[in-house]
Amino acid sequence: MSSTPTFLHLAARAAGYRPSPVRDFWEVSMQPGVISLAGGNPDLTVLPLAGLGEAASRIITERGLDALQYGSGTGTGGARDAVARVMAAEGNPVDPEHVQITAGSQMALELVVKLLCDPGDVILAEGPTYVGALGVFAGMQTDVAHVAMDSDGLIPEALEEAIARLRSEGRTVKALYTIPNFHNPTGITLSAERRPRIVEICSRAGLPIIEDNPYGLLGFDGATLPSMHQLDPDNVIYLGSFSKIVAPGLRVGWAVAPEPLRRPLQLASEATTICASVLSQTLVEEYILGHDWEAVLAKARGLYRSRSAAVQEALTEHMPAGVRWSEPRGGFFTWLDLPDGVSCHAVLDAAIDAKVVFVPGTAFYTGPDMDPGVPGFSQLRLAFSLEEEDTLREGVRRLGEAIRGK
Amino acid sequence: MSSTPTFLHLAARAAGYRPSPVRDFWEVSMQPGVISLAGGNPDLTVLPLAGLGEAASRIITERGLDALQYGSGTGTGGARDAVARVMAAEGNPVDPEHVQITAGSQMALELVVKLLCDPGDVILAEGPTYVGALGVFAGMQTDVAHVAMDSDGLIPEALEEAIARLRSEGRTVKALYTIPNFHNPTGITLSAERRPRIVEICSRAGLPIIEDNPYGLLGFDGATLPSMHQLDPDNVIYLGSFSKIVAPGLRVGWAVAPEPLRRPLQLASEATTICASVLSQTLVEEYILGHDWEAVLAKARGLYRSRSAAVQEALTEHMPAGVRWSEPRGGFFTWLDLPDGVSCHAVLDAAIDAKVVFVPGTAFYTGPDMDPGVPGFSQLRLAFSLEEEDTLREGVRRLGEAIRGK
Repeated sequence: MSSTPTFLHLAARAAGYRPSPVRDFWEVSMQPGVISLAGGNPDLTVLPLAGLGEAASRIITERGLDALQYGSGTGTGGARDAVARVMAAEGNPVDPEHVQITAGSQMALELVVKLLCDPGDVILAEGPTYVGALGVFAGMQTDVAHVAMDSDGLIPEALEEAIARLRSEGRTVKALYTIPNFHNPTGITLSAERRPRIVEICSRAGLPIIEDNPYGLLGFDGATLPSMHQLDPDNVIYLGSFSKIVAPGLRVGWAVAPEPLRRPLQLASEATTICASVLSQTLVEEYILGHDWEAVLAKARGLYRSRSAAVQEALTEHMPAGVRWSEPRGGFFTWLDLPDGVSCHAVLDAAIDAKVVFVPGTAFYTGPDMDPGVPGFSQLRLAFSLEEEDTLREGVRRLGEAIRGK
Repeated sequence: MSSTPTFLHLAARAAGYRPSPVRDFWEVSMQPGVISLAGGNPDLTVLPLAGLGEAASRIITERGLDALQYGSGTGTGGARDAVARVMAAEGNPVDPEHVQITAGSQMALELVVKLLCDPGDVILAEGPTYVGALGVFAGMQTDVAHVAMDSDGLIPEALEEAIARLRSEGRTVKALYTIPNFHNPTGITLSAERRPRIVEICSRAGLPIIEDNPYGLLGFDGATLPSMHQLDPDNVIYLGSFSKIVAPGLRVGWAVAPEPLRRPLQLASEATTICASVLSQTLVEEYILGHDWEAVLAKARGLYRSRSAAVQEALTEHMPAGVRWSEPRGGFFTWLDLPDGVSCHAVLDAAIDAKVVFVPGTAFYTGPDMDPGVPGFSQLRLAFSLEEEDTLREGVRRLGEAIRGK
């Protein structure tokens, strides 16, 4: 009764799901002696594990009949209150009733794209952009048009030009997807001066903004910038996450959408997972409303600041001439430009031999990834969030040798 | 800078996400004095809450750096082992390496449909079928063709006829979706005799089977039937869930798919939620591998058996002539046929006045739900899983009055 051929009839969208290079390095980076500058994992050693364990025990013992049961499709009241608390701390007050809780902000993005984009529609995004967002867009058969950025973030003129060009080509542009704070993969922050300009351009063009902000509270000096959602709540869909400020293993994220999108978001969310883990939501509630999470976060910011500084010093010491890099003021990532013509894939091969891994630049752009000259071909991302400073220095030293060998 | 109109440009698929009547009764059923025979929530009072709380505390305190971190895209090794243990207990041995963990089995279904179905493709499903599956199909713009069932489950001849008819109409039939054990919403189980026939028909037709089995271990007498996945693992995608045998608030489910679908499933899963809650997965692992979960389940089965018996007695006592109902041997649900022409919606209005709620039959069929004579118009679902026996009896009594008043 073999019938394997039936499985060759996959939907067209199935072709969009390609392996994430970030996830694929998981196994290589687990090998002994390998230094991973690849995955953007938060450092969880700062968390009050005993306190969280105690909270989990209390939740299950005392509130288990609710915390282990199906929950509301929009999220628990407590988790939505926790979101409001966290957003207020960043200068983005929000009504908890407007919050849609999701199983991580990855899912929030997936739902928004599902609801907004028909196959063949176009989403604008920074070039480079978050590799996981590219996976969502591809799965929903949405084309990506990259918009150039510089050290102040997305370039308003390039955005205007892209919208006009695509529309003149008859394309349906559905949204701008942007990571304004400590951008993944470059570490760059959109300047305060540019934010109202980007918002204004999109509003005038009738183009919703999907503002993805997992890193906003991770500025090394604790400074924050007003979200674009604050500037134009009717046209900005805000995505947030507890993954970088509490713990990714809980899988709790959220969206705050303009009114017309809230009910569709809830229904699409219910159709995808019914609800996010109620245990995780309740633990987030207990932690944000009952612990001094801001003190823990300040400690984490200190770790990331020192680690970034260690990477910057090591880059200065070990990189050959012609290599340039971003100087992040927060978040998890530094972005490298290799000398023209140097292949990030060749460097990666050499780096793996030298026992250090990173994510090649092509992963963060749509389109072919091995052809010489494609976007990202001579770029790469370094994550400094998880490893100790000495390890980071040694990783950068090995990387310098790998680049020198090319 | 108002730009609400942009949000009217939703994707075509957005129209597919319609409110689930099951979820919409949530608020009504929370009102004091209202008896809910609507939602299919498991009874969690049987769980060893103190033991689970202790396990959670230990996991976070001792393994928190892993259990609160991002996890493998296929699921943790421990959770996959737990799945293998549970499936073996039902007579369905499986290699843990073949298990894809998801954030609930709802998400497993969503991923499978995403990967298999292009807009306009057809999925066959029992009539009636799980309302949450209809939401998935609609969101992926997949049409549903219902196949008739009787007290032995899906009718093989009706299945053959449906495949032939749809193909002769030029339709692309992509899969059979079926809930063979203690079916939602009817409570009916597909007979042992029919299983190989259904498998054979689908194999011959080159049609994959999506076997959704959340209730298989909830037979009142503990008896189980071999899954269709066991009969033809190359053509059956098996979906399982810890929601009914551990706790739905954890959101851990799984898929076991034929080899060609495993990698696409992993990639689509990563694009949707990166991974399921690692804390939840670790708690499931501890519970299934470290506790006597089968003894707890036996206790739960006893509760559901007594509650079903109470409902059957009360139906016999309180239903007016012309009402018929299913006699489940497991699971959470009984299905009622009202006298011809009686509207389940009119009965529901009267029932809400009498402070009892259920899910109207039309919710479990695709298509319009208020027109007289549409499928489900004179049917309804009663859930007996969560309320006490006396409450169930009173609920059925009130329902009898509501029906009599029509």
